[in-house]
Amino acid sequence: MDETDLEILKVISDMGTDSPSDIHEATGIPESTIYYRLNNLRERGIIKNDLYDLDLEKLGLGITIIVEVVAEYKEGYHKKIGERLSEIEGVSQVHFTMGERDFVVIAHIPNREEVERLISDFEAIEEVQRTQSKYTITTIKNEPRILSTYSLDTLQANINGSTDSDGSERDDT
Amino acid sequence: MDETDLEILKVISDMGTDSPSDIHEATGIPESTIYYRLNNLRERGIIKNDLYDLDLEKLGLGITIIVEVVAEYKEGYHKKIGERLSEIEGVSQVHFTMGERDFVVIAHIPNREEVERLISDFEAIEEVQRTQSKYTITTIKNEPRILSTYSLDTLQANINGSTDSDGSERDDT
Amino acid sequence: MDETDLEILKVISDMGTDSPSDIHEATGIPESTIYYRLNNLRERGIIKNDLYDLDLEKLGLGITIIVEVVAEYKEGYHKKIGERLSEIEGVSQVHFTMGERDFVVIAHIPNREEVERLISDFEAIEEVQRTQSKYTITTIKNEPRILSTYSLDTLQANINGSTDSDGSERDDT
Amino acid sequence: MDETDLEILKVISDMGTDSPSDIHEATGIPESTIYYRLNNLRERGIIKNDLYDLDLEKLGLGITIIVEVVAEYKEGYHKKIGERLSEIEGVSQVHFTMGERDFVVIAHIPNREEVERLISDFEAIEEVQRTQSKYTITTIKNEPRILSTYSLDTLQANINGSTDSDGSERDDT
Amino acid sequence: MDETDLEILKVISDMGTDSPSDIHEATGIPESTIYYRLNNLRERGIIKNDLYDLDLEKLGLGITIIVEVVAEYKEGYHKKIGERLSEIEGVSQVHFTMGERDFVVIAHIPNREEVERLISDFEAIEEVQRTQSKYTITTIKNEPRILSTYSLDTLQANINGSTDSDGSERDDT
Amino acid sequence: MDETDLEILKVISDMGTDSPSDIHEATGIPESTIYYRLNNLRERGIIKNDLYDLDLEKLGLGITIIVEVVAEYKEGYHKKIGERLSEIEGVSQVHFTMGERDFVVIAHIPNREEVERLISDFEAIEEVQRTQSKYTITTIKNEPRILSTYSLDTLQANINGSTDSDGSERDDT
Amino acid sequence: MDETDLEILKVISDMGTDSPSDIHEATGIPESTIYYRLNNLRERGIIKNDLYDLDLEKLGLGITIIVEVVAEYKEGYHKKIGERLSEIEGVSQVHFTMGERDFVVIAHIPNREEVERLISDFEAIEEVQRTQSKYTITTIKNEPRILSTYSLDTLQANINGSTDSDGSERDDT
Amino acid sequence: MDETDLEILKVISDMGTDSPSDIHEATGIPESTIYYRLNNLRERGIIKNDLYDLDLEKLGLGITIIVEVVAEYKEGYHKKIGERLSEIEGVSQVHFTMGERDFVVIAHIPNREEVERLISDFEAIEEVQRTQSKYTITTIKNEPRILSTYSLDTLQANINGSTDSDGSERDDT
Repeated sequence: MDETDLEILKVISDMGTDSPSDIHEATGIPESTIYYRLNNLRERGIIKNDLYDLDLEKLGLGITIIVEVVAEYKEGYHKKIGERLSEIEGVSQVHFTMGERDFVVIAHIPNREEVERLISDFEAIEEVQRTQSKYTITTIKNEPRILSTYSLDTLQANINGSTDSDGSERDDT
Repeated sequence: MDETDLEILKVISDMGTDSPSDIHEATGIPESTIYYRLNNLRERGIIKNDLYDLDLEKLGLGITIIVEVVAEYKEGYHKKIGERLSEIEGVSQVHFTMGERDFVVIAHIPNREEVERLISDFEAIEEVQRTQSKYTITTIKNEPRILSTYSLDTLQANINGSTDSDGSERDDT
Repeated sequence: MDETDLEILKVISDMGTDSPSDIHEATGIPESTIYYRLNNLRERGIIKNDLYDLDLEKLGLGITIIVEVVAEYKEGYHKKIGERLSEIEGVSQVHFTMGERDFVVIAHIPNREEVERLISDFEAIEEVQRTQSKYTITTIKNEPRILSTYSLDTLQANINGSTDSDGSERDDT
Repeated sequence: MDETDLEILKVISDMGTDSPSDIHEATGIPESTIYYRLNNLRERGIIKNDLYDLDLEKLGLGITIIVEVVAEYKEGYHKKIGERLSEIEGVSQVHFTMGERDFVVIAHIPNREEVERLISDFEAIEEVQRTQSKYTITTIKNEPRILSTYSLDTLQANINGSTDSDGSERDDT
Repeated sequence: MDETDLEILKVISDMGTDSPSDIHEATGIPESTIYYRLNNLRERGIIKNDLYDLDLEKLGLGITIIVEVVAEYKEGYHKKIGERLSEIEGVSQVHFTMGERDFVVIAHIPNREEVERLISDFEAIEEVQRTQSKYTITTIKNEPRILSTYSLDTLQANINGSTDSDGSERDDT
Repeated sequence: MDETDLEILKVISDMGTDSPSDIHEATGIPESTIYYRLNNLRERGIIKNDLYDLDLEKLGLGITIIVEVVAEYKEGYHKKIGERLSEIEGVSQVHFTMGERDFVVIAHIPNREEVERLISDFEAIEEVQRTQSKYTITTIKNEPRILSTYSLDTLQANINGSTDSDGSERDDT
Repeated sequence: MDETDLEILKVISDMGTDSPSDIHEATGIPESTIYYRLNNLRERGIIKNDLYDLDLEKLGLGITIIVEVVAEYKEGYHKKIGERLSEIEGVSQVHFTMGERDFVVIAHIPNREEVERLISDFEAIEEVQRTQSKYTITTIKNEPRILSTYSLDTLQANINGSTDSDGSERDDT
Repeated sequence: MDETDLEILKVISDMGTDSPSDIHEATGIPESTIYYRLNNLRERGIIKNDLYDLDLEKLGLGITIIVEVVAEYKEGYHKKIGERLSEIEGVSQVHFTMGERDFVVIAHIPNREEVERLISDFEAIEEVQRTQSKYTITTIKNEPRILSTYSLDTLQANINGSTDSDGSERDDT
């Protein structure tokens, strides 16, 4: 992935558009190049899906619940349980983390009754021992366009430097 | 928003496509209706942006950090601090929650050095008193297409029933 | 429930009386209307019981204990356990909550010996794993007349606005 | 307070009625005695108010929030802060407790927007340092008629034995 | 127990002596009364044992360990476990408490090796699930003569008022 | 301190007596030796005081409160604050400990009202930031005669081995 | 660093020797190569110091204390405080970590009195707000020769694969 | 171990050398004495191994993870589990500690993938119930040469005073 690819993806994220002519206007990159590059990014799996950024409040999914999960501690279980958590209706994120609890799960639900349903779905997973759920009073930011959270400079510096990202020294000569 | 709107949005989310012909194929809804409805949803603000679902690992933003933030407790501060947290590079989600800590923040960063930068950015917000950050060992699910986490049935039931979503009784006669 | 109903209930709560003549005096609403309305509220289940507000200290039930309960995590158990907690002598409130522990229980007991009895009653519920009980040093407020904690304005605003209480948009046309 | 007083109050609590004829029917105590006793209990302050037991869900106050409050630790402050907490709209109980946090506060609110208002009201009390609020998924019991949580036998035993309630021995001879 | 009894016990505690002549000197109470009263207090079980206040450091038991114990939660277990904890060598106090852990245990041990032995003794009690032990850096006060921690005035006020110590009102007439 | 000293102190602790004839009977050590040894132990400060073991319940001091204290963290403060904690009426033990909180304090108080007074006394110490107090439901053991918690064998082994109590090796040759 | 370097360092770590002839015997690598490679590793800073692995118990530093430190949260402070923590006598490790507390510090001290000194040294750093120290009952492993904790295979696999250690993709063509 | 021994070990630790001529230069102690003393220290087990202080970052082991482990609580298990923890690849320290969790474990790993492997290795130990792992953002100090963390004065004072290190009094005459 070179700087042109990155510039295109960044503009898409910043402007919230996937129209090549808009991208051309913002970057000066010829439209044909943009088409070619987007195709190429899609083939390499960097672009995975087209999607719209929907307004969750207006869709009636305005309640966000963050659940921390403690599961039974057995060999290989964190993968199995992670997948079962992923299948619960309304769950959009499942992170297996370091720290006091095993998983951080984020769900979007329509109303109060669904809180009880959601908790019951966690209860129904046998290996789940404890959940601690947090009710989100208000979501100040929820940006699916991750690239827009960075400046182009940081992104470019990061690409160039990413090979030594663990601080380990390579013997380049 | 009626059931046709919902069906269209659901297919977009499930298939990861915004192509009207693909949507038509999956639903049987005429393409012209699809065009009309999408325009209408955009005008009403339900569709906010076009975007691509990008592979964060491949973009070199593969490390996810979840930070819980305790901030100084003063009148009106949670909004102000929420916005300052939102401006930190790499931060894509900021939730103001009930519970022991005030904010749950999610950030995506490229490498280990950035952990230190990120923590320093939190330190630099004067009202932030404590952070507790969790390193994500592996992200099992991160689905920006929230509608795909529900069945169409649940979504439809929810739209119809959403007016009494707080369980409060209305005097309909 | 209209504003007249609300006004009557509010005065009852504020004044701690159920005498129609007192209510009439405070509101100017004709006594016959008050009788009619109270009957109607009772039939619709909004008024559930008549009761007196008793002085717990003078009744020798002056010690308040707040118990947080962690129960075994199995499907459907929170209802079953919630009911068993409700049957313990002295327990007047059982809330199933989000957070680190499952239930918040409030009990009123007469003396120190009863603390031990109360804890033993929790121990006797097989699915209860842990309790954390707090001894109330002093109760600053314990108001069974919930309506008196609100101004009439807030209550009225709330009735009118209650249909969109989840922030979900309805298609009114 | 003798056993007749107690029997009357117990029946009122169990049946949810304050009608002397209902009480007479249930206990066999002559109505005139009941009138006399109720008056007397009122004069001695044991009966404080008449009130109705209202259905909070139907009144649109169906969300219960339990807030634990940590306040600045200064001499005499717990009384002052306890009173300020009592004045927040929606707050019906304020307990000053032993344990990790200073106060347990219970509030009833109509909808999600009010959660944010409630938290802001706590933020506005200068001495409040931290709050931890729990969203009640469902309230299994909320019984304002405390006497109904005891059997008559336990209540009577308690009255007779209440004088040595601290386990301290009195020199009765 | 009257004020003379209390005065005698208080002087014994304050001066660290059990010599009737010393007590007489400090209080003016005739020695024969002191003898009689002490005998009487012993017969009524208020004085349980004679003992010396020993210097634990000099006895080579200078390390104090405070252990909080969480035990398996079963009916009636807290008594059984409490007694087993009491039998561990070095354990001088076992309190069954409200709060996050069940027991607070205090032990005095001679050296570092004994810490390991002590923990092993807790491990050997089957029902003990978790212990959290605190190493005492320095003990600032350890006063077995409890009465000396009060002024005589407070003690006397307390005796007179002790009958209504739970705040419950008795019907004395 | 040799084994004879230890044997005498052990018998005093086990039997709860300080009578030389009782000690003689239990040990066979001549009474004159016992007198001499006790005097000597007193002179060396191993015996600090004579005292009686009093029944706290019967003295009306039956409520035990365990308070964990967090104090402001400044150089040298833990000594100063430790002493101020020691002066609070009812406080008999103050331990400065490793762990999450700075001090463990034990107090004995007569009744519920005193809990509030006790907490207020902690509040009044400026450097105290937080207290967490635990109400003791029942005290299973409270043995001021520490030696009785050990067997004589363990005590003797300990005296002989106490010089290398830190596991550090000494160069004895 | 190639596999020969790694093999040499691994043998040094496993055998606890720095003698080239011993290394030669274990690996078959000519002594002259070993000399050359060791010199080279030293010049590149991979070998930093010669040192002996000393028995801390025998040196009278047998007590290990692990201290978690919470420091005042200000911009850039974690570096400054980290260095001040490093200067405390007995402190050998200072880690700045993610999680509830800022630093994990490990110290080795000779005796009980030094615990108090150590805590006082932490108290003396103005920005330190809280410490939580843990007394190590016994250290089961303390291996300064980190390479000996890995098999040679793992180490070699790691060297070869270390360039993509963050999972970020490089454009190698 | 006398002061000459200590001086030699201190210089070795401070200078990071084991060369007798360097030690001679720094201390003035004749080289032959140094040889003799080092041999003697080795025979008495105070010097256990020769080793080099390696740069972990440059070796590609730059990520430090601190893991707190809670294990099943059974008699004698802490030793058995301690040893199994010690065998996990990458683990260099295992401390069995007082406090809320049983073990503090320190591991050095090469990259992010290894975090998951490490956690899986803990999961695979049957008796391990919970782990809480902390990612080290940056290690400010990691000094294997423990003696260099003390001044020579403190070390010497400590040797002389180490025999009464528990504060217990010995009967020296």
